[in-house]
Amino acid sequence: MTAESAFIASLRAIATHPAARDLADDCAVLQVGAETLIITHDAMAEGVHFLPGQDPADVAWKLVASNLSDLAAKGARPLGVLLGYQLSEDDARFAEGLRAVLSHYDVPLLGGDTIAANGAQVLGLTALGLATHRPVPSRSGARPGDTLWLTGPIGAAMLGLEALQEDPAAIAEASLAYRRPQALLAEGQQLAPLVTAMMDISDGLLLDAMRMAAASDVTLAIERAAVPIAVPEPRRDQALRWGDDYQLLFTLPAGVHPPCQAQQIGMVQQAGLHPLVLDGTAPTGRLGYEHG
Amino acid sequence: MTAESAFIASLRAIATHPAARDLADDCAVLQVGAETLIITHDAMAEGVHFLPGQDPADVAWKLVASNLSDLAAKGARPLGVLLGYQLSEDDARFAEGLRAVLSHYDVPLLGGDTIAANGAQVLGLTALGLATHRPVPSRSGARPGDTLWLTGPIGAAMLGLEALQEDPAAIAEASLAYRRPQALLAEGQQLAPLVTAMMDISDGLLLDAMRMAAASDVTLAIERAAVPIAVPEPRRDQALRWGDDYQLLFTLPAGVHPPCQAQQIGMVQQAGLHPLVLDGTAPTGRLGYEHG
Repeated sequence: MTAESAFIASLRAIATHPAARDLADDCAVLQVGAETLIITHDAMAEGVHFLPGQDPADVAWKLVASNLSDLAAKGARPLGVLLGYQLSEDDARFAEGLRAVLSHYDVPLLGGDTIAANGAQVLGLTALGLATHRPVPSRSGARPGDTLWLTGPIGAAMLGLEALQEDPAAIAEASLAYRRPQALLAEGQQLAPLVTAMMDISDGLLLDAMRMAAASDVTLAIERAAVPIAVPEPRRDQALRWGDDYQLLFTLPAGVHPPCQAQQIGMVQQAGLHPLVLDGTAPTGRLGYEHG
Repeated sequence: MTAESAFIASLRAIATHPAARDLADDCAVLQVGAETLIITHDAMAEGVHFLPGQDPADVAWKLVASNLSDLAAKGARPLGVLLGYQLSEDDARFAEGLRAVLSHYDVPLLGGDTIAANGAQVLGLTALGLATHRPVPSRSGARPGDTLWLTGPIGAAMLGLEALQEDPAAIAEASLAYRRPQALLAEGQQLAPLVTAMMDISDGLLLDAMRMAAASDVTLAIERAAVPIAVPEPRRDQALRWGDDYQLLFTLPAGVHPPCQAQQIGMVQQAGLHPLVLDGTAPTGRLGYEHG
């Protein structure tokens, strides 16, 4: 058990409120009067979640988009965000990116806090949204017989990061997928009434699929060749294990077709020996980006 | 203009949503169906908001209590908190303090995020609550003729910090006020229907009173000797400028008496030459803890 997983286990022991059922699920789901509030908080650190020296405007974009992606996976309509900001070298540029991403998604900045501290910059963002469909999709609802889908190709963020590392100065279309990920809010809202389970792929398809399988107590059987990829074929296995793409992974009852662009990549089976099988066998090695 | 105030100014230019009217006010106020949601996010950094080597359980306590104090100033009933946690040396001890403070205030942990990063530990907490009275108290409602009140003595946290710095190892009652501040949630809810303005004193009485005066466009006239202090008389002026006590500062219409323990410390006047006068003259020098 890593330090992080030990700490998360102790947090889970504390987080016994029904709204926190989704502590493993990135979002809390809270009934407020007649409305269902979806809340998520993600932190990002320089050197871990973004590159030292990376354009602060891109960092702001990713901070907001990755949190909105958590809301997208719940079919939520965003209400606003709160920012925890550690001052750095180019705060004005961060503010520019923040303005751009909030305006792109038409999401208001509601508040937050700024602090001065030494060391690697640490940023936090809380995003709030309202459920557009109840029950709110979770990662735990996949049932044997369901079909397994992905909204779009993975691996684009991997290529983007490589482009950025090769030439940080270039204002590069090539790195756009890594620098400015998209939160699939419209797709999440279209899918919410239909899916049995849904989550966003932030840490890698195989790792996140494993999490969905564990939460749903099923086996997910993925057909390797059916997974849409944004990379050359020889790098397919790498793309399946790379994060930051923020596509939606979801399950549908057999015979139900998605109302948005998506590709069927496998099936849900009764829980077997392995929670995840790729072309019939359990994938080995690193499955994605493990935190901590 | 400091880097922080420049950044905050740029944030304010972005935060144009009506719910963010309180961006200067520590909390956002958001209508959700028939309910009024109060949301606040505070960040704390090692070496700035808490001492390097300080007991992580105390750090957890202060992180939660200071955010709940923001809710108290709005008369809100807490719904829960989300934690942004940077892993450190004794995460288990942090979890113990977190459990203690959440159980003390009967507030659930709803979710959050943990990250591993280098450098000073940075923590974030988002607290959500529901308004118990509308309109929700703000710091901008003080009117000339109102009376100015404080819920209790200030300076206790200053003494507590000194005790802790002298002897970090002692499990000291003496440092309790600094290590485990109290959020005056019950008082805030009792006061909310009566006050014209309210805020918590986190950065020092004089500095925070100045902020209330500016937000309300009035002059606050404080009678120096009337301010309740927890320190020896010679240190009165210091206590008036010290933070971390989390008492509530509020204004009442003339003739209205507070339903909880409180001391009248002055009056609200028409906006004059100075936003704040202490025994008739503008206080000079540092008024409190200025961030950044």
